[in-house]
Amino acid sequence: MFIIKIGGNVLDDQQMLTAFLKDFASIKEPKILIHGGGKIATKIGNQLGIESNYIKGRRITDAETLDLVTMVYGGLVNKQIVAALQKLSCNAIGVTGADANLISAVKRPVKEIDYGFVGDIRPAGVNTALLHELLKQNTVPVFAPLTHADGNMLNTNADTIASVLAVALSKYFDVRLIFCFEKKGVLKNVNDAGSVINHLPKKLYDEYFAQGIFADGILPKLENAYAAIDAGVKEVLIGESIDLVKNTGQETSGTLITK
Amino acid sequence: MFIIKIGGNVLDDQQMLTAFLKDFASIKEPKILIHGGGKIATKIGNQLGIESNYIKGRRITDAETLDLVTMVYGGLVNKQIVAALQKLSCNAIGVTGADANLISAVKRPVKEIDYGFVGDIRPAGVNTALLHELLKQNTVPVFAPLTHADGNMLNTNADTIASVLAVALSKYFDVRLIFCFEKKGVLKNVNDAGSVINHLPKKLYDEYFAQGIFADGILPKLENAYAAIDAGVKEVLIGESIDLVKNTGQETSGTLITK
Repeated sequence: MFIIKIGGNVLDDQQMLTAFLKDFASIKEPKILIHGGGKIATKIGNQLGIESNYIKGRRITDAETLDLVTMVYGGLVNKQIVAALQKLSCNAIGVTGADANLISAVKRPVKEIDYGFVGDIRPAGVNTALLHELLKQNTVPVFAPLTHADGNMLNTNADTIASVLAVALSKYFDVRLIFCFEKKGVLKNVNDAGSVINHLPKKLYDEYFAQGIFADGILPKLENAYAAIDAGVKEVLIGESIDLVKNTGQETSGTLITK
Repeated sequence: MFIIKIGGNVLDDQQMLTAFLKDFASIKEPKILIHGGGKIATKIGNQLGIESNYIKGRRITDAETLDLVTMVYGGLVNKQIVAALQKLSCNAIGVTGADANLISAVKRPVKEIDYGFVGDIRPAGVNTALLHELLKQNTVPVFAPLTHADGNMLNTNADTIASVLAVALSKYFDVRLIFCFEKKGVLKNVNDAGSVINHLPKKLYDEYFAQGIFADGILPKLENAYAAIDAGVKEVLIGESIDLVKNTGQETSGTLITK
């Protein structure tokens, strides 16, 4: 099955989003979509006079910001995607982690920084049985980047939601987890957009890593990817949203990460 | 089973809402909650500079207003209710009609007035089979007053959603449809809050109607109620939110409407 994450850059561009959703709708079930936020929350937050709060460069989710992202991610963005997918005959069901307790979280403990209403999650927090039921009904869950704990919604990283769902569902399926980002894939030479590494098994990664060829920006993504692989996910693919259909096949144009 | 609708007056009062959700959580499954909007949408709309448009006293849902209600009803209000119910060990799943195509609608045809993005629905538009599956999983659907058609979300009357769901599910269940409103029940004398009619079978209604005892405000509710009864719903109850638990039992404090 395919678990696919799209980021803000796609959501912010109506034309890219429309093309992406058409491609997504064409992929065979079972499949899950996880969307990030996009700039629309910042725009609406500005109009509402909600200031973005940062401590040491990290965004803080105070109570006002939590309401904002609950509205914008869980309502506006999520339901617009669902309505568009329904028109494409894809039986999308828009959810947050709170819905049917699909992903319960822990409010991030306050250490040096109080991140506010932010959720930390792990695969054990996924209501895998119910998610599996939804998939068996041929519905297509579309997750907003929100979870819950103790009666509160919690702002939660969409990449992490995608990874955690992939790990939890690897119990039932051979999962390919696809991260759509703004490049074609992982580059061997960061200055050469054509230098996509097509297949990156762990051994090759270790070799390249020792050579220091990976840019700082891609390293956290790669570490996440191998963590998912170690936890049972069959394949992780990092590629561009425009290549989604190709990247669900055998001959991918992105970077396929395996054991 | 119980299909319960709460209106804006409960949503706008945090204390009333908390008490209501506690009562709702205590009711045995299967059950469904439908919530209306409340003043929060108007408040946020004002902050965003979205003007309320009325033609001949009827609110018009233009594109901006549609985004507003999708955010506020489908996101903020719906997910706050879901998170609160989850804390009360009620496995709520927040949905709109677009999700899993649970309620498809028709955009209201333009006649004298163009209502904009407003959905008209009927029981045949309910994805009864999937809704039944969700209930079988012991999840508790919580509906925001939104449906969809042709790739758009549509603003939809919450009372109508409740009725249509009740009719559709009467195929599987003995349904009691409960409308929570601001009075104890239907009054025999509109100036006497103690004159609640406890049981109002159709024959008695016809008698009272001929006597002209019903106030104009309650007549549309009563007509809706008997329409639901005629279409297969076993019982409709009109009562106050504070009496919810009592109104799910045999000895109700509201007005029980039957054949």
